[in-house]
Amino acid sequence: MQVSELGEFGLIDLLAKMVSKPQDKQLIIGIGDDAAAWHGDTSTQLATVDSLIEGVHFTLGTVSWNELGWKALAVNLSDIAAMGGVPRYALVSLALPGHTEVDDVTDLYRGMIELAQQFGVAIVGGDTSSAPVVAITITILGSTKSQGKHILTRSTAKPGEKIAVTGYLGAAASGSEMLAKRLQFDPEATACFRRAFLHPYPRIAEGQILVEQGVKTAIDISDGLISDLNHICKASQVGARIEADRVPIEPKVKAKFGDRALELALSGGEDYELLFTGSAEVIDKVRTAVSCPITVVGEIIADKTGKITLVDRKGKSLNLGRGGWEHFATR
Amino acid sequence: MQVSELGEFGLIDLLAKMVSKPQDKQLIIGIGDDAAAWHGDTSTQLATVDSLIEGVHFTLGTVSWNELGWKALAVNLSDIAAMGGVPRYALVSLALPGHTEVDDVTDLYRGMIELAQQFGVAIVGGDTSSAPVVAITITILGSTKSQGKHILTRSTAKPGEKIAVTGYLGAAASGSEMLAKRLQFDPEATACFRRAFLHPYPRIAEGQILVEQGVKTAIDISDGLISDLNHICKASQVGARIEADRVPIEPKVKAKFGDRALELALSGGEDYELLFTGSAEVIDKVRTAVSCPITVVGEIIADKTGKITLVDRKGKSLNLGRGGWEHFATR
Repeated sequence: MQVSELGEFGLIDLLAKMVSKPQDKQLIIGIGDDAAAWHGDTSTQLATVDSLIEGVHFTLGTVSWNELGWKALAVNLSDIAAMGGVPRYALVSLALPGHTEVDDVTDLYRGMIELAQQFGVAIVGGDTSSAPVVAITITILGSTKSQGKHILTRSTAKPGEKIAVTGYLGAAASGSEMLAKRLQFDPEATACFRRAFLHPYPRIAEGQILVEQGVKTAIDISDGLISDLNHICKASQVGARIEADRVPIEPKVKAKFGDRALELALSGGEDYELLFTGSAEVIDKVRTAVSCPITVVGEIIADKTGKITLVDRKGKSLNLGRGGWEHFATR
Repeated sequence: MQVSELGEFGLIDLLAKMVSKPQDKQLIIGIGDDAAAWHGDTSTQLATVDSLIEGVHFTLGTVSWNELGWKALAVNLSDIAAMGGVPRYALVSLALPGHTEVDDVTDLYRGMIELAQQFGVAIVGGDTSSAPVVAITITILGSTKSQGKHILTRSTAKPGEKIAVTGYLGAAASGSEMLAKRLQFDPEATACFRRAFLHPYPRIAEGQILVEQGVKTAIDISDGLISDLNHICKASQVGARIEADRVPIEPKVKAKFGDRALELALSGGEDYELLFTGSAEVIDKVRTAVSCPITVVGEIIADKTGKITLVDRKGKSLNLGRGGWEHFATR
């Protein structure tokens, strides 16, 4: 059945039933009124929104609806992770062509709900409308773990601090390229790249550990390491030096993309790892506390122009190339 | 200049400057980090999201960018009004074709900011992305006026309560039809219809007065009086009887659309008036406290099937016709 046959209100009823009654004791009203409502508290509140648009962020031929639902939520949860917060509620604005299959929409919601449940996030509202292409806009509301906890920002990096990153980079961009160009790899690499690009796992737990271990500055890698580091440098009015050899490139990216692996890791984006700064001691404490790899990739330097340099093992400057993903940019 | 020439980050910088530093003392971080952040409090929190999509909700040829910005925010503020809340923060997700003029985008923001300032709403975040058509998705975060204040819901209507509405109905649908069919009216009617459709004024103050005067049940009229009353009936498990003669049709709609005026008022939608229920005494108190007209249009009746009947002066049943606006519906 197509959504045009079911109608808007039928679709909303169906999705509201899937979301079910959340267990959240603070929630007063979920889906089904003019707005969601919950009991407020005095922790620091967080809110972020991000859209995935067909033909821009994804192609329906290469992504399943389930993966799409997961990813649409994951990229938003990642922004809460980058603040060191706890995600709590999600609002989902869904734009769909009338000929979309209802089963596809429920698959989309299944992907979203699967991830939401892992982090105790309740889908409490949203809207649906017809549109020429699919667009999924998710708002996440979150908070600090408790009153008095600080948040991670982009504007607090200090010269002398080390720059570190969680996990490995480059696999998501490899997945994007693999799907766009229909590249063929062995099953293991194919699965790794696809999972990284379409099924990213937001670093929520790690973001909270960063806060607990005293980190002040973080961002999630959505546009690419260089581009996202640039946001930190601009907001903090500092420069940065990245050592190319230290960048934790996903081994399968090195194996399959050779010379281009570094570019994919630095500029590909969408890895949704956390990029953060701190003293060597703080970073060591983080390394002990988390279960994922933590790699120091460079250092914050005093430079109000916000310049980022990329150097090789011998300190020789390398060309940065394209900085990262930017919408509307004509390259 | 087109947004593709300015680029995403240039556009974000430009819009962030327009929004300026909000005066809100509770705000910790506005635009420019991974998420907005503010100090929480113990009042009941509210969140709602709604999208306006080119070709579905508006046509760029008939609406100015300024009006579009105003309306995109107004329809969302109206949802907070329907809960009796105070709007506080807005997140704006903007999808645009790369060839959109930057001046048009700043006009859009000007329309939005003008309305936001009237209600002390701070635009604290959002995202921009390229897309085949313009889509504006706004999330509003609000709260009750203070701790302990109740909210207005759809699920609390009781048999015997009167059904009342703020203001006049039908002008927005007249405006929609006037623009779509290029109908020609005298300047006064043209301005009235256009303003109602493209420049609606959310009933924020009135929503708060409803709470103070003891109203429990309300909804804003976005889909049409009958369709929105249907949401109340379904959520409250009650029926309703509407007296056609009592419906406060905008006089210019009567003058210009004659026999069709009642249909436009009942099913046209987008008037963003408040539809609410309460005892005759409570409604009288509301009437005294607000500055807009309050009209009783019918009564809630005991009927778990949620049926709505429309009757004439003599109590004779009239045909309801189309219920109101519904996305994806094929008519």
